[in-house]
Amino acid sequence: MIYALDMFGVAVFAVTGSLVAGRKQMDLFGVVVLALVTALGGGTLRDLILGIRPVFWVSDQRYVAVACAAALCTFVAGKFRPPPAGMLLVADAFGLASFTVIGAQKTLGTGASGAVAVMMGVMTGVVGGMLRDLLSGEIPLILRREIYATASLCGAVVFVGLSARCPCESVNLAAGIAATLALRLAAIKWDLSLPVFLVRE
Amino acid sequence: MIYALDMFGVAVFAVTGSLVAGRKQMDLFGVVVLALVTALGGGTLRDLILGIRPVFWVSDQRYVAVACAAALCTFVAGKFRPPPAGMLLVADAFGLASFTVIGAQKTLGTGASGAVAVMMGVMTGVVGGMLRDLLSGEIPLILRREIYATASLCGAVVFVGLSARCPCESVNLAAGIAATLALRLAAIKWDLSLPVFLVRE
Amino acid sequence: MIYALDMFGVAVFAVTGSLVAGRKQMDLFGVVVLALVTALGGGTLRDLILGIRPVFWVSDQRYVAVACAAALCTFVAGKFRPPPAGMLLVADAFGLASFTVIGAQKTLGTGASGAVAVMMGVMTGVVGGMLRDLLSGEIPLILRREIYATASLCGAVVFVGLSARCPCESVNLAAGIAATLALRLAAIKWDLSLPVFLVRE
Repeated sequence: MIYALDMFGVAVFAVTGSLVAGRKQMDLFGVVVLALVTALGGGTLRDLILGIRPVFWVSDQRYVAVACAAALCTFVAGKFRPPPAGMLLVADAFGLASFTVIGAQKTLGTGASGAVAVMMGVMTGVVGGMLRDLLSGEIPLILRREIYATASLCGAVVFVGLSARCPCESVNLAAGIAATLALRLAAIKWDLSLPVFLVRE
Repeated sequence: MIYALDMFGVAVFAVTGSLVAGRKQMDLFGVVVLALVTALGGGTLRDLILGIRPVFWVSDQRYVAVACAAALCTFVAGKFRPPPAGMLLVADAFGLASFTVIGAQKTLGTGASGAVAVMMGVMTGVVGGMLRDLLSGEIPLILRREIYATASLCGAVVFVGLSARCPCESVNLAAGIAATLALRLAAIKWDLSLPVFLVRE
Repeated sequence: MIYALDMFGVAVFAVTGSLVAGRKQMDLFGVVVLALVTALGGGTLRDLILGIRPVFWVSDQRYVAVACAAALCTFVAGKFRPPPAGMLLVADAFGLASFTVIGAQKTLGTGASGAVAVMMGVMTGVVGGMLRDLLSGEIPLILRREIYATASLCGAVVFVGLSARCPCESVNLAAGIAATLALRLAAIKWDLSLPVFLVRE
């Protein structure tokens, strides 16, 4: 189940990378590159920091294959009809949710403490999208005023907190994903935001 | 003493990250994220390249705690009164100085040569601030015309040069920090700069 | 021969980094920093992901020396007369070609599969230039509409495909480089481009 979830996250993040590439009118290869960076960036940094060798997509090529396939499908579909409005944000929320709990779960598996697992979960969730936005010249979603990384933080805390108590991993994963998704989708729908830190100058 | 210095660097870089986040009107979580990236980015890259596993803030959670605390204090203090003008640049100079000598010192400890220790010192000092500026959409300080990385370079050279001769590490550390700080603060005060490389086109 | 090729790639990428720094009117140290990042960035990420420790320029300091020398020569030469128009793009093409085949060759040497070797070759080739463009505030070459990463991809595929069949490594390397260069230089000369992925909104 974790494997399926990870593949799902890779696919939806690849789709978001392709959509952003499309907005910027990149060519076919730029689309694939941005999709790969978005889909694999967070997990790569996670594996590097945890010292997992080799990095997940080097040892299992299905990740790369899934990301490329998702990018190509998006490219082809985008030629025929425009993607539904808001699809980018919603797909991104699903990717964020699944990568967050998977990052936290893999970190717990290395014997790290709960606090580190929460941080690594958030990092796995947000880094891919951050690289996508940086490379395409947009202000990263995470740094805009909406609730984004906060949703990822909540999901990671829920998952890690449950993991210490409940032995049933699939319930914990589902709860973490549900927490992230609920908060993020609510933030998109009702434009929720945290207090802003305004420096008067 | 090295540990205290490292924590000090983490705290002041976290403050600079928070101040930049405040200027960009980020929310509470964005402030914490930018503070963490600024405070931990340089050391993370250093540990990755040197092959130190796990990365320093995974094995010792006090780094993360100190950075978060510094960010929250800056956030709360910024709500009450504006930070003094120029505080960002001065705090950044202190962080640059302490991270530079610590990066060089840790690299020497792995048995690397002096030249590599100088490079890693500069890298540890400048990468955090570079990521901060990249993520917030500003031109990195290091690439503006002021003396910035040059100050870090001088401090690293002073520290590594003394380390080969003088066994007293705390003197070496202090000398490296003093060299970096003196040059950087002088550059801020009198607007010093290196010759520019102007390409005529 | 591989070693010479690698040094050649480091030197030309350092020159491109210096030229971009010159355009942005950076000072002497900014020029050296941008040259180092451009020349060493791709290989550093490659070694990190493959788990090669320590990273190549830590174990062999001649890489750093060559990159610094190339940057200083460009700086000094640029003071006397402007670099020929188009030199940046052509030097970049040579660096892209040599780094691509070397990245793929090193990856094959770790026992990885051909598909991973192709990806790592492209990554080694494009990441240095991508960091250069990001740091200097330009839209990365790779994401513009020209054929760039596609040329790298072709070269990597040619090299990896030949390596599985032909035992003579220098022929394979030359073929991979020729494929990349031919495609990239043709794209520069005749403004070739791949189909664009236009999202209608």
